[in-house]
Amino acid sequence: MSGNTFGKLFTVTTFGESHGPALGAIVDGCPPGLALAEADLQYDLDRRRPGKNRHTTQRREPDQVRILSGVFEGRTTGVPIGLLVENVDQRSKDYGKIMDRFRPGHADYPYQQKYGRRDYRGGGRSSARETALRVAAGAIAKKYLRERYGVEIRGYLAQLGPIRPVRLVWEEVDNNPFFCPDPDKVAELEQFMDALRKSGDSIGARVTVVATGAPVGWGEPVFDRLDADIAHALMSINAVKGVEIGAGFASVEQRGTEHRDELSPEGFLSNNAGGVVGGISTGQDIVASMALKPTSSIRLPGRTINLQGEAVEVVTQGRHDPCVGIRATPIAEAMLALVLMDHALRHRAQNLDVRTATPTIPGAIRSL
Amino acid sequence: MSGNTFGKLFTVTTFGESHGPALGAIVDGCPPGLALAEADLQYDLDRRRPGKNRHTTQRREPDQVRILSGVFEGRTTGVPIGLLVENVDQRSKDYGKIMDRFRPGHADYPYQQKYGRRDYRGGGRSSARETALRVAAGAIAKKYLRERYGVEIRGYLAQLGPIRPVRLVWEEVDNNPFFCPDPDKVAELEQFMDALRKSGDSIGARVTVVATGAPVGWGEPVFDRLDADIAHALMSINAVKGVEIGAGFASVEQRGTEHRDELSPEGFLSNNAGGVVGGISTGQDIVASMALKPTSSIRLPGRTINLQGEAVEVVTQGRHDPCVGIRATPIAEAMLALVLMDHALRHRAQNLDVRTATPTIPGAIRSL
Amino acid sequence: MSGNTFGKLFTVTTFGESHGPALGAIVDGCPPGLALAEADLQYDLDRRRPGKNRHTTQRREPDQVRILSGVFEGRTTGVPIGLLVENVDQRSKDYGKIMDRFRPGHADYPYQQKYGRRDYRGGGRSSARETALRVAAGAIAKKYLRERYGVEIRGYLAQLGPIRPVRLVWEEVDNNPFFCPDPDKVAELEQFMDALRKSGDSIGARVTVVATGAPVGWGEPVFDRLDADIAHALMSINAVKGVEIGAGFASVEQRGTEHRDELSPEGFLSNNAGGVVGGISTGQDIVASMALKPTSSIRLPGRTINLQGEAVEVVTQGRHDPCVGIRATPIAEAMLALVLMDHALRHRAQNLDVRTATPTIPGAIRSL
Amino acid sequence: MSGNTFGKLFTVTTFGESHGPALGAIVDGCPPGLALAEADLQYDLDRRRPGKNRHTTQRREPDQVRILSGVFEGRTTGVPIGLLVENVDQRSKDYGKIMDRFRPGHADYPYQQKYGRRDYRGGGRSSARETALRVAAGAIAKKYLRERYGVEIRGYLAQLGPIRPVRLVWEEVDNNPFFCPDPDKVAELEQFMDALRKSGDSIGARVTVVATGAPVGWGEPVFDRLDADIAHALMSINAVKGVEIGAGFASVEQRGTEHRDELSPEGFLSNNAGGVVGGISTGQDIVASMALKPTSSIRLPGRTINLQGEAVEVVTQGRHDPCVGIRATPIAEAMLALVLMDHALRHRAQNLDVRTATPTIPGAIRSL
Repeated sequence: MSGNTFGKLFTVTTFGESHGPALGAIVDGCPPGLALAEADLQYDLDRRRPGKNRHTTQRREPDQVRILSGVFEGRTTGVPIGLLVENVDQRSKDYGKIMDRFRPGHADYPYQQKYGRRDYRGGGRSSARETALRVAAGAIAKKYLRERYGVEIRGYLAQLGPIRPVRLVWEEVDNNPFFCPDPDKVAELEQFMDALRKSGDSIGARVTVVATGAPVGWGEPVFDRLDADIAHALMSINAVKGVEIGAGFASVEQRGTEHRDELSPEGFLSNNAGGVVGGISTGQDIVASMALKPTSSIRLPGRTINLQGEAVEVVTQGRHDPCVGIRATPIAEAMLALVLMDHALRHRAQNLDVRTATPTIPGAIRSL
Repeated sequence: MSGNTFGKLFTVTTFGESHGPALGAIVDGCPPGLALAEADLQYDLDRRRPGKNRHTTQRREPDQVRILSGVFEGRTTGVPIGLLVENVDQRSKDYGKIMDRFRPGHADYPYQQKYGRRDYRGGGRSSARETALRVAAGAIAKKYLRERYGVEIRGYLAQLGPIRPVRLVWEEVDNNPFFCPDPDKVAELEQFMDALRKSGDSIGARVTVVATGAPVGWGEPVFDRLDADIAHALMSINAVKGVEIGAGFASVEQRGTEHRDELSPEGFLSNNAGGVVGGISTGQDIVASMALKPTSSIRLPGRTINLQGEAVEVVTQGRHDPCVGIRATPIAEAMLALVLMDHALRHRAQNLDVRTATPTIPGAIRSL
Repeated sequence: MSGNTFGKLFTVTTFGESHGPALGAIVDGCPPGLALAEADLQYDLDRRRPGKNRHTTQRREPDQVRILSGVFEGRTTGVPIGLLVENVDQRSKDYGKIMDRFRPGHADYPYQQKYGRRDYRGGGRSSARETALRVAAGAIAKKYLRERYGVEIRGYLAQLGPIRPVRLVWEEVDNNPFFCPDPDKVAELEQFMDALRKSGDSIGARVTVVATGAPVGWGEPVFDRLDADIAHALMSINAVKGVEIGAGFASVEQRGTEHRDELSPEGFLSNNAGGVVGGISTGQDIVASMALKPTSSIRLPGRTINLQGEAVEVVTQGRHDPCVGIRATPIAEAMLALVLMDHALRHRAQNLDVRTATPTIPGAIRSL
Repeated sequence: MSGNTFGKLFTVTTFGESHGPALGAIVDGCPPGLALAEADLQYDLDRRRPGKNRHTTQRREPDQVRILSGVFEGRTTGVPIGLLVENVDQRSKDYGKIMDRFRPGHADYPYQQKYGRRDYRGGGRSSARETALRVAAGAIAKKYLRERYGVEIRGYLAQLGPIRPVRLVWEEVDNNPFFCPDPDKVAELEQFMDALRKSGDSIGARVTVVATGAPVGWGEPVFDRLDADIAHALMSINAVKGVEIGAGFASVEQRGTEHRDELSPEGFLSNNAGGVVGGISTGQDIVASMALKPTSSIRLPGRTINLQGEAVEVVTQGRHDPCVGIRATPIAEAMLALVLMDHALRHRAQNLDVRTATPTIPGAIRSL
């Protein structure tokens, strides 16, 4: 309730600051019997891990996750899963300079005002480091959804500043540092990022996530719509300023004849809905996009105020991602997985008998 | 938990279908002592009410709200407020034709699949009629926020199909059927909508809401960020496909030097953040926009399937809004009010002592 | 969250005061397909209804319940069920005398202090009248549990002042005004209550509820134990001061060899646990008891203070139950039903695959 | 929501099994600015710690707690507090014998049936070892309540088998292994426990907790009554079978003139209510008691079944408390602290303006 728990039936509660001793999470509500090992979580943690190439922060964190409970003899037991990731490469001294002033675009100012104090080292709790545990928890949801429902969750970089992928080659996404699905754009991205890094500035990005294989019927009217929960989940990621489902903002200029997705015995004839209608999954691909603002931590000087309210200049040294969007793809996948997992459980709670009933619509139904 | 409750401390639970006898809501968590009468709720209900002009559905609903509890001698007592609105102009016979087939773009299909049955009359629970109670509940939040915190919540039509207001004249918003803030665009909107109605098609729209006077410090890390809850709230409105906070998707092409909002002793120098940084309000205007898809209910024939999964054609007669965005402004205002109200209460629960402490930052702080 | 909602997956939110125009509830999370009519709710409402005999309050309330949503063509649709009961026999003038003073044992004083104001008419929100809606909502849960799981929930008066039933004859419970299961004790109860009423005093009581047929496996570790939720549910009933599960307080003097319930291939050999071990149902009868204090509303004068804090005398006229325990049996049944319903849904959310797996323990397992 | 989180605004989520590598908790919602060190938590952990004397289990656990987040420069920052306690003295081999059979009175059987598998080592998640983290989290609540509100929470052993303390000497409680408040009963308890241990049997107990200094007004109608939440909290403790508030089950035989607590300008004239009326604190001492069953783990053979459902005999070796009630006092204190903390925060969320208003009742009001 206090803001650090996500989900209603499959809940993830996280703790930890950028420069504290460790980050952790408790994953509650995972069904029993799922084969689970630390390696299952480490895969996505490594995809998100910093310091792997020159385009992301040079902070070196192995992000090794430990499972402290909830798994016995290789399988989940149905009780909460405790996760722990230790911080090993803090350099708190980097932050001495900004302890008395507010970095523009950072949570420094609202945290100070809200709490009357703040852990200024690396942004403390507001640091995107917290997302490491989301990725770890999301990996559990991903695995369950895959094994139990055949749902695949994947994402990619849909835009970085002015550069947009043209082709969507899923196999390519993990072959480059940007999660770019278009092999022909990688060189361009390399050059753009190198120049950007030299300039000391940062850039925004757009990331798209897709869930394939999700059955029809997930989502609860009227407030806990599946798309509303996806919007909540993606907007809760650091630096995200916008969320779209399916056609998103393009819908504004569409006509009903153009937007509405017609049906045929073979399925839907289009997917402007992005796989969600009336807040409930349709059985089509679930497609969501998010906009990430440019990193606020840049070494170009900016105007701000200090704790005394005086005008001062701030320069962010430290180690930062010039484009937070680059490492955001695994985080977005994780959040989508958490939403779908939660709704998968909620759905069967109330619709068990429907679920097990014979489909009423030949051809058009997706079995749960 | 089952999806029909919004909020954590200031909760709104709604019930009711488009063609049932009545719609209702329970507003729980309203502080005691607020002067409240049915007229306070009726004002916004009337702004949203259908059938007022030729550009919206011709269904005639007075939408008279009754307060059944929680108010004694003209003031709230701190116990739940029961609200009731009776349906008076149902025409269920209109829907006989579509009881056996799924209207494209409607929740007919996912509801049938999820629940194994559905109230097909006017979309049943999935109808936007449910939003009447959101508006009624939101009016309570709006009044409390205004009287207790001096927060004003207003919205306007930011785009309708190809037409965008150029000027923002707040006084104009309630002077035309479209909630259009630009007096010079009203005639154009009239013509566009008349032509659209003749064509039998529908169109999308964009609505923007703004909260002025909100103090710094509202919002909870990390999942219940203020912007994440706003995204959840707006995306839970029927037909919404996208949500933006501040610069939104424009952030994708921005640079850090351009996006970050610098501070001065007089306050912030820009507001790309839309009043929320790190998930917490900054004391600036809170600005959010949403994209609404074109109405799916159009009289132009569409392809679909029936309960037997056979290919059939569907034509939606009934009475519908050719642009759901037109009446969406009061709904968006209400949802923003519910989010801010909830976070206002959550904030003081945990930060009472900070709240009452002397501001640590002269000039730059917004007192609660 | 604000205290007027019960349950997590099957939620009941109530509103209404003793002397307001109406009481209502929203039941959210009821699975679709349950045959449901107002008569199904009315049966238990009538069992609880006041004014049926000389031993309860003479307030005449028909307690006619209306279902305003969630049921279509005689079956639940899976969306929220709106319930409404109008108050028809308020006599607010009775309360003019006590508006300025606090009745001992009543919520008058804490409400006034908590909220700074209160609806003093009949206790306002703190009146046991609110339990009418719990009974209506509980009837839905009872019906679902019976039809879907074969669970029967019944209760009886286990003690009234010094009088304890000796025999448990279930058929007898609804044949007397006291829900007394021992036909030989009814005359004694009649005499005791007649004398008590003449004396102007009131008396406490003990009520026991039993659920038969509940499968093994309901309940969630560690905080949402089934017995913890039952304790919460029963203690939330007006005037309840104690709750026991199984052997309850007798356990204090028991030895392990005496208390522990041994198992055999035919099942358990005793039930000191009351059907719950480790917070999870065992498949045995679930047995819980509650202690109800004597009614605080008595016409014998008592010492108290008024709004000015001055010592005054108070005499409660109005119409009251000399023993609130008499009408408490249907309320306790309803609350137990709400708890079991909630846990039935929660269980299948997380243990669907276990549920559908072949039982691992022949004979000893209770199939879900 | 999945059962391992307690509280609504001050939430505690725990993980960990008896024989896993570690136990942990996340405390969310602690206000910023509270001076907090590991020593503040260790004090109560040590009071509960096993192996300190011959009357409790001989398992040697230092129960050293680490604070991993949420505290910066010696004070809480308002973000979640991560807690970790490592298990160091597991002896899993002790449990090989019972892995295939169900110990009577233990959660073995329902866990196996619910989850289809279980961590049988020391009871896994159902072990009372989990309560160590409740005590750690409760210590945070205790400290905040003491420093912010002047609330003191204390408990004592009220009965052990046939032995009841006669005198209540608070200073004595921590001077003996039993938390017995009557110095004249300690020798008797020693002899009783020595004989019991020799016999191989176990015994039940009763523990009472008292909160002094709690202001009037804490608690929410109607389901989240303060006493209902206390009942939930205490009944969620391992082995608890009954809960009483104030006069508890004695109310059954009381008359209204005897039970109702009259008021005078100097305060209440009695406290049968146990400090809670209408679910809201009255400003008097809050008094609650709980009944604990005798330990089920005894070395005297018992009848049960194995995984194949065959009749077998079971003898529990391992290391166990012959009376779980002995170490339950700090746990009960912690749970009462968690409930009061949660309601303190909830109260000020909704009643801030009342709270800061001038008291309306001279003398009789307790200022917040």
